[in-house]
Amino acid sequence: MPHRVGVMLSGCGFQDGAEIHEAVCTLLALDRVGAKTICMAPDIEQRKVTNHLTGEDADEKRNVLVESARICRGEIKDIAQVKADDLDALILPGGFGAALNLSDFALKGPDAQVNADVARLVRDVHTAGKPICAICIAPAILAKVLGGEHPLLTIGNDEGTAGALEKCGAKHESCGTRDFVVDKERKIVTTPAWMLGPSIAHVAEGVEKAVRETVAMIA
Amino acid sequence: MPHRVGVMLSGCGFQDGAEIHEAVCTLLALDRVGAKTICMAPDIEQRKVTNHLTGEDADEKRNVLVESARICRGEIKDIAQVKADDLDALILPGGFGAALNLSDFALKGPDAQVNADVARLVRDVHTAGKPICAICIAPAILAKVLGGEHPLLTIGNDEGTAGALEKCGAKHESCGTRDFVVDKERKIVTTPAWMLGPSIAHVAEGVEKAVRETVAMIA
Repeated sequence: MPHRVGVMLSGCGFQDGAEIHEAVCTLLALDRVGAKTICMAPDIEQRKVTNHLTGEDADEKRNVLVESARICRGEIKDIAQVKADDLDALILPGGFGAALNLSDFALKGPDAQVNADVARLVRDVHTAGKPICAICIAPAILAKVLGGEHPLLTIGNDEGTAGALEKCGAKHESCGTRDFVVDKERKIVTTPAWMLGPSIAHVAEGVEKAVRETVAMIA
Repeated sequence: MPHRVGVMLSGCGFQDGAEIHEAVCTLLALDRVGAKTICMAPDIEQRKVTNHLTGEDADEKRNVLVESARICRGEIKDIAQVKADDLDALILPGGFGAALNLSDFALKGPDAQVNADVARLVRDVHTAGKPICAICIAPAILAKVLGGEHPLLTIGNDEGTAGALEKCGAKHESCGTRDFVVDKERKIVTTPAWMLGPSIAHVAEGVEKAVRETVAMIA
């Protein structure tokens, strides 16, 4: 039986949803190691819609689950229907969607709230002893949900963001884009990706390494 | 000076725009060979908007250039402003956007019309002796614009689509997803990608090989 790895998406586009390069590189790395991918997203309205040509907010409404479906060609589940038992590991790509739709970290920093289904699944997968990987800004969700366990995380080298993660209880370690940080005890893998850049080849390398490490930690 | 390679996008999502995996794998392969990528799309309304969760048409309007910008993080030009002199090679990822927005091949088959700026750039790049790569269904655009030269192309193994390309003057050769077809004389490279699948790792392999062949043909 192939490993079943959840991929939690947050829309489609780095300014208001999932970072597309990070999400696609995650799907590619999982396919390369022979894992079965289970994509999911919350069935909620996006906090905003951003015109990615101009960077300005657009007067539109879009749904996180519907837009996420673009990245995985329609093969996606409502996260409300996904349980920890369905997964052997969980991966959260980044993009502002992780900090706008899956949580409100972009607005409230360490005082953020995490979407209830996102928090439930992260907590349940972790409690079941299964590995979790978070990319780019998505480690903020792990810091909020699992901060009490003081997990070791990275979001790259941005001091303000790292400080916000530490206020949630996490320990932060600086890391380059082609590398990753692993908390072996808590089975948590993180990599900075587009928090640092500078280009998609760097992002793909870090994501592929982090995904392989995550899958290797499946019991 | 790095090679300057144009990437022509057609939206963001395989049912109404550019196929996201193919587009991202193209950007990744270009970055890996050290090319400078110049993304572009026409500043026109999408022919339709498809809900990628349900597969149904949505009652929305979206702009091809604005949605394409999601794939390349805002670094994109209006194709009307791109000239063959700006490029050393041109790559067209697939997705229904190539057959709905860059042309109307999905509706009219061999009687399709190609967007005027798309046709101009394809013709001018080709006339300048620069290589062109087309992925998935995008070879239909080359068949329409360059059919009079009888280029050798692939869209995989779908007989109906292959027949439509041949009606435009092209010669079709069957090809697997991990491979590509090259017309060395006309400097045209094609690979089936998600026309065949069956998974993103196969698509990434074929796209990377096709991109490397294309860049290697730059004079």
